[in-house]
Amino acid sequence: MDKTIQEVLDCYKMCVETKMYCLEKGGKHADPKHIQALADCAESCKMAADFMIKKSPLHGKVCGVSAEACKRCAQSCEVMEDDEMMQKCAEMCRKCEESCMKMSSM
Amino acid sequence: MDKTIQEVLDCYKMCVETKMYCLEKGGKHADPKHIQALADCAESCKMAADFMIKKSPLHGKVCGVSAEACKRCAQSCEVMEDDEMMQKCAEMCRKCEESCMKMSSM
Amino acid sequence: MDKTIQEVLDCYKMCVETKMYCLEKGGKHADPKHIQALADCAESCKMAADFMIKKSPLHGKVCGVSAEACKRCAQSCEVMEDDEMMQKCAEMCRKCEESCMKMSSM
Amino acid sequence: MDKTIQEVLDCYKMCVETKMYCLEKGGKHADPKHIQALADCAESCKMAADFMIKKSPLHGKVCGVSAEACKRCAQSCEVMEDDEMMQKCAEMCRKCEESCMKMSSM
Repeated sequence: MDKTIQEVLDCYKMCVETKMYCLEKGGKHADPKHIQALADCAESCKMAADFMIKKSPLHGKVCGVSAEACKRCAQSCEVMEDDEMMQKCAEMCRKCEESCMKMSSM
Repeated sequence: MDKTIQEVLDCYKMCVETKMYCLEKGGKHADPKHIQALADCAESCKMAADFMIKKSPLHGKVCGVSAEACKRCAQSCEVMEDDEMMQKCAEMCRKCEESCMKMSSM
Repeated sequence: MDKTIQEVLDCYKMCVETKMYCLEKGGKHADPKHIQALADCAESCKMAADFMIKKSPLHGKVCGVSAEACKRCAQSCEVMEDDEMMQKCAEMCRKCEESCMKMSSM
Repeated sequence: MDKTIQEVLDCYKMCVETKMYCLEKGGKHADPKHIQALADCAESCKMAADFMIKKSPLHGKVCGVSAEACKRCAQSCEVMEDDEMMQKCAEMCRKCEESCMKMSSM
């Protein structure tokens, strides 16, 4: 579990940083749906960390939400193939999605 | 949706206040599982409000989590039949559970 | 205090909604500094509510932060004189700033 | 700044874990004022992380709040001299207080 907690915290940090980068870049990077995907992923990863740290009986359900949010965020980032920052964010979200999926089915 | 947003915010407020009351009271009121049920309900209601306000495509999933958290919190409060504060909190959680359930299946 | 709690929750809600509106609008509305002012105000109002609801001895300090965040957000909104939504948000932030100031000096 | 971000996230994690431990232990460990000190520290460190990650102009002020919360939490933990967990939490809070102080005066 400790590994997953650090992973969701890293993913949360990455998504907040990516969101700031995208707002600065503007254009398709600042598309409301893309910004929302990043914000949703950041928020739900933060909450998943919280519920895992306090060993809540609901942590599996919250990880289910963050897995879904990670998937959507990765998809939204992967579209921008030519942007290294987006590819890095997508990669982290995919890894985090997998860990959250495992946690949600336990 | 606006009605449900106010309901989850009210439920969040109620659960935080009830948690403080229970910590003050001590004894069975301060049982870690009961405190956790109240904290989980407060946290997930706050997050449900957040996702509904920003009209996130994930708001249904988050409301699913808060519906479950509300149910567990209500059950944990209902056990203490002789405490008016617990009954009031349970009542609000039941109402909020119902609204969140509807939101989660939409 | 109850009045101020509802006020910061209303201001939080307003700022999240305004942020979504601004991201949709694009252009100067989606300026990263403006989006950040709205996000900072929303976040700190949410935290001020939290600390007031649980009667934390630190609620005054947190209200000091939200007063500052409200002021900056109001200034950022007031610039766009021709947009009714911005004026409405600025107005609420000014009212909330005043209430948070009072709370922070108590 | 990156070092401080990891420090406040570690302190947040530590305080949530310590809070769960204290609720389990009961007695003076579950004293409402002590639980609140731990919760306030966790919350404000989480928010300080958030404002630093997004490079908000308000991150200094938020770090000022978390420095104060860390100090109060450390003091509340240090009283229980015979409990290793409390001493470990106090130590981390003191380190975090110092980093947040530096950040708040920059």
